[in-house]
Amino acid sequence: MSTTGSPAPQTGSRPGGRSARVRAAVHRAIKELVADEGGEPLTIPVVAARAGVHATTVYRRWGTVGELLADVATSRFSGDIVVPNTGSLRGDLERYASDLAKDLCDPDTLALVRATIGTGGEQGAAACRGERRQQLEAILERAQARGEHSPTLERTTDAVLAPLYYRAVFTDEPLTPEWAHTLVSHLLPD
Amino acid sequence: MSTTGSPAPQTGSRPGGRSARVRAAVHRAIKELVADEGGEPLTIPVVAARAGVHATTVYRRWGTVGELLADVATSRFSGDIVVPNTGSLRGDLERYASDLAKDLCDPDTLALVRATIGTGGEQGAAACRGERRQQLEAILERAQARGEHSPTLERTTDAVLAPLYYRAVFTDEPLTPEWAHTLVSHLLPD
Repeated sequence: MSTTGSPAPQTGSRPGGRSARVRAAVHRAIKELVADEGGEPLTIPVVAARAGVHATTVYRRWGTVGELLADVATSRFSGDIVVPNTGSLRGDLERYASDLAKDLCDPDTLALVRATIGTGGEQGAAACRGERRQQLEAILERAQARGEHSPTLERTTDAVLAPLYYRAVFTDEPLTPEWAHTLVSHLLPD
Repeated sequence: MSTTGSPAPQTGSRPGGRSARVRAAVHRAIKELVADEGGEPLTIPVVAARAGVHATTVYRRWGTVGELLADVATSRFSGDIVVPNTGSLRGDLERYASDLAKDLCDPDTLALVRATIGTGGEQGAAACRGERRQQLEAILERAQARGEHSPTLERTTDAVLAPLYYRAVFTDEPLTPEWAHTLVSHLLPD
């Protein structure tokens, strides 16, 4: 079961070592299982079997399926969208909204968001938001630095981020770039 | 296991009979299990045990946990909010938004929405939307009949419904009535 006489430490193990391989296998198993809709309920033994690792390893490292999903979502949704820098607030927000729309359209991404929301509680929800808040904040701060009048982060979240997530998660309507742009037009009227 | 020689038909069984009692027990079990956050993964055997019914009965009637959650969500979110009729579009939308904010603030409601999104796929998502679309449509149509200028259903969904669901499901920020009213103010500027 163990390659050495004593269990590998959870921290300090070398990158590319056993710990990293287990993490990669478990993350891959989660993504496959989540993408397989009519599949069996997501439990630690099911994930472990798919990943080819011992269930106890998964329990020890992640504790619950919810925490595991939150971990996968965090690594999936952090740094996934480059903050655009087009020179104008409108341009930045339009690019940002259409990039996010495209990302959320991906069936595997959407399945991961839904599964993480379903079992990850607050932690899972935070993982699905990823760095969106910081990304929007960066766009708004840059606009202010240029002297542009910019809405608050709360207002931008309500007007742009919320409809993108709502439409992706709760409806089967398409997230077209045109529609994403209209969200920005309503936030920043001429 | 059966009260008669042959299995009771799924449809046509008398209200208040065995079929209705099983449904009530299973719905109650789901609500309890979903509300119990750190609990075990939601599987049919776990639900059946909590409801005190045979797992085969639950499998036969609902098939999967996803379909079962969608069924519970449908009965929970249909007809739960009375469409307000205050005499003005602004008044109706403000009442509607703050009623929905209050509803989504309830931890048990939120837990049910999250769990249903997590395992119910498109069907679960539709169940969580419930009759919101029709309710908003009724408000907008009444405003038009009064001769008020009213936004489209899509625009109202993006501006009012989406931020309420996004804030409830993806963040830990409070859904105050004041905030819900500002959503309407932005949709219907003076």
